[in-house]
Amino acid sequence: MQTRGRKEVNMAGPNVYSVLVTGSNRGIGLELVKHFVRKPNPPDVIFATCRDPAGAQAEELKKMASKHSKVIMLQLEATDPASVEAAAKKAEAHLKGSGLNLLINNAGVMPQSTLASATPDDMMSVYNTNVVGPLLVTQAFLPLLKKAAQGSSHKPLSCSKAALINMSTILGSMEKTPETYSWFPVVSYRCSKAALNMLTKCQSLEYKQDGILCTAIHPGWVKTDLGGSEADLTVDESVNGIMKVLCNLSEKHHGILLNWEGKTVPW
Amino acid sequence: MQTRGRKEVNMAGPNVYSVLVTGSNRGIGLELVKHFVRKPNPPDVIFATCRDPAGAQAEELKKMASKHSKVIMLQLEATDPASVEAAAKKAEAHLKGSGLNLLINNAGVMPQSTLASATPDDMMSVYNTNVVGPLLVTQAFLPLLKKAAQGSSHKPLSCSKAALINMSTILGSMEKTPETYSWFPVVSYRCSKAALNMLTKCQSLEYKQDGILCTAIHPGWVKTDLGGSEADLTVDESVNGIMKVLCNLSEKHHGILLNWEGKTVPW
Repeated sequence: MQTRGRKEVNMAGPNVYSVLVTGSNRGIGLELVKHFVRKPNPPDVIFATCRDPAGAQAEELKKMASKHSKVIMLQLEATDPASVEAAAKKAEAHLKGSGLNLLINNAGVMPQSTLASATPDDMMSVYNTNVVGPLLVTQAFLPLLKKAAQGSSHKPLSCSKAALINMSTILGSMEKTPETYSWFPVVSYRCSKAALNMLTKCQSLEYKQDGILCTAIHPGWVKTDLGGSEADLTVDESVNGIMKVLCNLSEKHHGILLNWEGKTVPW
Repeated sequence: MQTRGRKEVNMAGPNVYSVLVTGSNRGIGLELVKHFVRKPNPPDVIFATCRDPAGAQAEELKKMASKHSKVIMLQLEATDPASVEAAAKKAEAHLKGSGLNLLINNAGVMPQSTLASATPDDMMSVYNTNVVGPLLVTQAFLPLLKKAAQGSSHKPLSCSKAALINMSTILGSMEKTPETYSWFPVVSYRCSKAALNMLTKCQSLEYKQDGILCTAIHPGWVKTDLGGSEADLTVDESVNGIMKVLCNLSEKHHGILLNWEGKTVPW
């Protein structure tokens, strides 16, 4: 019974017709796609984007897409406007008139960087991937998010209506920085994620009128290529939590930063 | 008597041996230099930096430098590491073994930009000037700030010992964004200033051990080229306030955002 109970938790997640996850060939992105596929009532369409669908780093995602027809791989380099636009056009064609319920801007990078070692290249490149990328992807997919919201205009804000999720981090929280800075400076990453939090806040104010829920999520410190092997959580634990959080998102979570357990993280 | 009182307020400001202000050919930067010059006990050295000291936009600063020998103009393009390094070398030579007490990262840009209109070029260029610039300038002048702190190691944190001031804005505050977003979106600027606030927080944690006070300041909405003619405050009113704030800065202001009246702005 315990195993069964555990399994039900694992299968939790928002009921959506369509979802898109960027950076879905590994880490949290790949695990999100796996969790959506495993749901008892999975989305009809799961767009799984990555920079290089033909590359060695996309093997596992490719296998999943070949087994599950709901998983649609799309090439998307979030910092390249032409690539983002092309992906949005393909997604639109695939949706055949339906909207996109849930956009998860998950792709991100976290190079080591201190105040002494940070270079312009480091700062700019991290900002490009972690902030400009989510801005461009959201601009391109906004018409599809709006269409999903219009299609369920009676419902309150929720993931099953239309939602934009930006994967952020507690390391982008000014309030929490004193607790983690000395052992984890990652200055270029922190600056980019503080900016991403601001982007999320602006998006929440701009897109509320369109019925699109906008929330930033801190996935925890997760054992992935990005988080390293010393991290607190397995990727399964983190994504289990995120799926439950997505289930429960409502207007009161609009424009804030939540952790994988659904607790508010201060700015 | 009222006029006399006003004048005394105008002359307030921190007692420092040396100060450097970036972007000092106009707006708040130029006014800061004017206020330092006018103090009854002005700094011995006022480094006034700008991108193009020979250009038409530096005429007023050039006149001031020709009248006041304490004002030393330095070419400094904050996004160009070579220019920043060269300025730091010149400043070091000029200081003849003394440190730099007060570094004010004032240079910044604020193009109009909305979620719909923001482009990668806009986002990247604003981040470069408003965040990477202050990072580079602080890296280059850090040895001189440390030297000033070491030269007065007995004193508590203050501007007259050693301080780093990043000119930020309430528009970079996540908490305050709902109050101002609709009439002043400036998305690329807001994102960059949220990141600058994070940079300030990191700097405050890193440089406390060196005795360097680090504070972000919101100058108010000021009638300058950047703020426009509709703004609330004259540049004189804003800088009067800032000079008083600088006077009173102490450890309790380390790593926070203060407005021109000395009130804390939430992140």
